[in-house]
Amino acid sequence: MASIFDKDELQQHISKQFDQELVDIHSRILAMGGLVEEQVQLGVKSLIEADAELAERVVADDVKINSLEVSIDEECTQILARRQPTARDLRLVMAVIKTITDLERIGDEAKRIAYHAMDLSRQFPKRNQFTDLEHLATHVGVMLHDALDAFARMDVEQAFRVVQDDKVANAEYESILRQQITYMMEDPRSIPVCLDIMWSARSLERIGDRACNICEYVIYYAMGKDIRHISLDQVQKDLKGE
Amino acid sequence: MASIFDKDELQQHISKQFDQELVDIHSRILAMGGLVEEQVQLGVKSLIEADAELAERVVADDVKINSLEVSIDEECTQILARRQPTARDLRLVMAVIKTITDLERIGDEAKRIAYHAMDLSRQFPKRNQFTDLEHLATHVGVMLHDALDAFARMDVEQAFRVVQDDKVANAEYESILRQQITYMMEDPRSIPVCLDIMWSARSLERIGDRACNICEYVIYYAMGKDIRHISLDQVQKDLKGE
Repeated sequence: MASIFDKDELQQHISKQFDQELVDIHSRILAMGGLVEEQVQLGVKSLIEADAELAERVVADDVKINSLEVSIDEECTQILARRQPTARDLRLVMAVIKTITDLERIGDEAKRIAYHAMDLSRQFPKRNQFTDLEHLATHVGVMLHDALDAFARMDVEQAFRVVQDDKVANAEYESILRQQITYMMEDPRSIPVCLDIMWSARSLERIGDRACNICEYVIYYAMGKDIRHISLDQVQKDLKGE
Repeated sequence: MASIFDKDELQQHISKQFDQELVDIHSRILAMGGLVEEQVQLGVKSLIEADAELAERVVADDVKINSLEVSIDEECTQILARRQPTARDLRLVMAVIKTITDLERIGDEAKRIAYHAMDLSRQFPKRNQFTDLEHLATHVGVMLHDALDAFARMDVEQAFRVVQDDKVANAEYESILRQQITYMMEDPRSIPVCLDIMWSARSLERIGDRACNICEYVIYYAMGKDIRHISLDQVQKDLKGE
């Protein structure tokens, strides 16, 4: 499948004022995505390095993401009112409106991880307790990055890859839960630390889910088909006309 | 503040074909809301009564909510394309689009609670372990009901009440967490049961958050103001023109 925003089409698009607005909104959402990615990375860093000061910065910076959500949402509503887009342009605006909601919620998860970092920094956890969480964080970070990249280029194939990858992230998450339960049962004094790790792992797993949501909007935009709640195998069969 | 859909206005609205479509969508979302409320109630019931069979039904029925989300979303997109609403009508369609996303996610939380019920039913928990969770479930159930009622009547005052009430639900949730941590530390064999209770409490807390989101869309519709990420005190001052 070709990328939707290929060079010629992008040029043609830019030729009109309305399309310029769509391109603007498209780049604003990518800027928001970049900020959200950074918040997730710093949230995880503050957790692993037990850095309460960094965690506080992550919590404070969440407001930047919130205000981007409100202003892009407002811009989309204005475009709907003034330009009354149809077909593919309408689908783009709808995809943007849904994507910013997920990005804002990913920001909330980064903030939650930072809160756990503050809590953990007072409990002196062992560095090796984070090995698997770090692994999950890297994995989910790549999923989020690839989802934003798929959105940037409206690349359906890449969007499918991210959605498929979520199974692996879920398995990693489940394994962290089992591991932490074992630790807790072996040494009840470790319960508070293990719980912070479990809640943080849950936040990372949810970030992976939301990266998948963004990919589903990319597929909806490009294909004009809402694939939420449909199995991937079925969607791919439909695509091939089977 | 008066309700937005008062009788005269509703009549006037219905006089046009387009407005009929808006009224239709308004009632479809309320039907979806009723189904979601029921799923939450049954999910909690399956947990408290350790009823694995009921839990399985809750999990299976989630598909009904998912398909309602997709079809109402599609209907909204068609209204945007065909009718090109502006001002208040546009805000109504936007409020509906956002509300169905939250309703669908509340359905997911009900499903998560049902999964914990299946897990718990194999562990023979003591009935008195659920007292506080039951209390939180009742509270959150009322919040959800009142949020849907506020949406039905576009009642801003009621919407504010629900948002304010969320603080109490959060405090109840925090108290359940502390209590379960104490139980786990006292008796490590109880860890698996306590974790199921904690995850279920988290799901209930998130349902409360989403009920608040719905109320924020009611306020956005009625006032034309996006109050997400603004303190309630500030919004109420703005309302009074202070």
